[in-house]
Amino acid sequence: MQRYKVTLAYDGSPYVGFQVQPNGPSVQGELQRALKLMTKGQAINVHGSGRTDSGVHAYGQVVHFDYPTPIAEEALLRALNSICDDSICIQKVEAVEDTFHARYHTSGKRYIYRVEGAPFMSPFKRHYALHHPYRTDLDRMAQALSYVKGQHDFESFCSTHTDKTNFVRTIYRAEVHPGADPSSYYFLFEGDGFLYNMVRILVGTLLQIGDGLKPIEEMPRLLEVRDRNEAGPTAAAHGLYLDEVFYLSAEDRAQKTAQWLNFKKEADFDA
Amino acid sequence: MQRYKVTLAYDGSPYVGFQVQPNGPSVQGELQRALKLMTKGQAINVHGSGRTDSGVHAYGQVVHFDYPTPIAEEALLRALNSICDDSICIQKVEAVEDTFHARYHTSGKRYIYRVEGAPFMSPFKRHYALHHPYRTDLDRMAQALSYVKGQHDFESFCSTHTDKTNFVRTIYRAEVHPGADPSSYYFLFEGDGFLYNMVRILVGTLLQIGDGLKPIEEMPRLLEVRDRNEAGPTAAAHGLYLDEVFYLSAEDRAQKTAQWLNFKKEADFDA
Repeated sequence: MQRYKVTLAYDGSPYVGFQVQPNGPSVQGELQRALKLMTKGQAINVHGSGRTDSGVHAYGQVVHFDYPTPIAEEALLRALNSICDDSICIQKVEAVEDTFHARYHTSGKRYIYRVEGAPFMSPFKRHYALHHPYRTDLDRMAQALSYVKGQHDFESFCSTHTDKTNFVRTIYRAEVHPGADPSSYYFLFEGDGFLYNMVRILVGTLLQIGDGLKPIEEMPRLLEVRDRNEAGPTAAAHGLYLDEVFYLSAEDRAQKTAQWLNFKKEADFDA
Repeated sequence: MQRYKVTLAYDGSPYVGFQVQPNGPSVQGELQRALKLMTKGQAINVHGSGRTDSGVHAYGQVVHFDYPTPIAEEALLRALNSICDDSICIQKVEAVEDTFHARYHTSGKRYIYRVEGAPFMSPFKRHYALHHPYRTDLDRMAQALSYVKGQHDFESFCSTHTDKTNFVRTIYRAEVHPGADPSSYYFLFEGDGFLYNMVRILVGTLLQIGDGLKPIEEMPRLLEVRDRNEAGPTAAAHGLYLDEVFYLSAEDRAQKTAQWLNFKKEADFDA
């Protein structure tokens, strides 16, 4: 048995989301299908760094799984790419220690959200950016974004469909940049963690501010009130990209695992 | 009745091609569906500048049609964009004289062909560029392209599925350029007309030269031998874009129409 860490890009358009679901194809399901084919029928469980919703894309999602026999990283990379649908591209395969976990050992993530401002949407971007054909002020949004940086309670920017109770996250980067075309731009968010729909609700709110529908001071107010109903709409899924997943160092991972095992031992004792 | 010249972009992926065909949706069919809806049931014939094959894209295809009543250009633009599928984007609508013809009055066209050279294909480009993961020399291709410029008989670069007998065309621009990503590049061809599959066979041949499978002098040789079987393969449809269609000036159009009417009169006389 050998554990592998795999970095992949995918076009989220054809999928119900990252996670296996009964109502359609998923990225996880497609990876598991490929692994089952490679192992001539063994079911291998693929663990992602986190879910992405239907239509959400990834430049650098990370997963791990245990392969029954050790095989060369390059061979695994080529095999997965040749079996998986073209909407998924395996970029990197790394053999890792058995304790590595794609979800538990993340230290942060970076997301990108793409917006197209042209009056009519380019057919080539229709699945890859939000169409927002309004005169938007990037400077106003940049000012609002300055309030997002740092440690805050983001309950206003979290879908109510969550079981989370801790809404505090630290955002290291919160930026808006001009895109490749004069009519396009994109947001970039990097932080130690993100709540469900957090980037999409932030973008929905930022666009209201950029369009002049809300004042710049709406942003600090929303961070204060901690009420999802007060924030802007959830921007469409197809503008969102999981850009990169960051991981704890091997040393920090070992420490975290030790803490967790200790916690488990105490829990067993209590039971 | 008012004739309109309409410029449009489309993603060719969902279509059997530009032209209406029994085996699936077409760009022409989608435009005619929209016009039928707008006129509450009148069938309006849409004439394109030329066909594009299944999977071929357009940044600037041109069509004309006769609308039963004159309506504002802007209103027609908005109506067509709101009815047509998102894979089609109407960019420009111009009311034109009744004698304008989208096909007969062209003076030339420009095509672009996109290639991605990365080892594994980006999921975001899989419908929009040819995947050619080989070490290719752009300089060799640029040298071969210098032979393509000018007036030549392009029979070697024409599908045998054609009823054309005159293979002479004049190419004004024949170029290769680096793309937006370091691993991508694109070809650009501008000329007074193009034969069936001409750009795709030129690209298939140029890639053989760029890869070192054929010498640079293969290009002038192929222009000499006038034999499709000697040229390279037809490069995939999904890398090709009809970029722009050029038209004769109103004066030149009037002259061409007069010539044609004269020819018709003579033909009638003979009959």
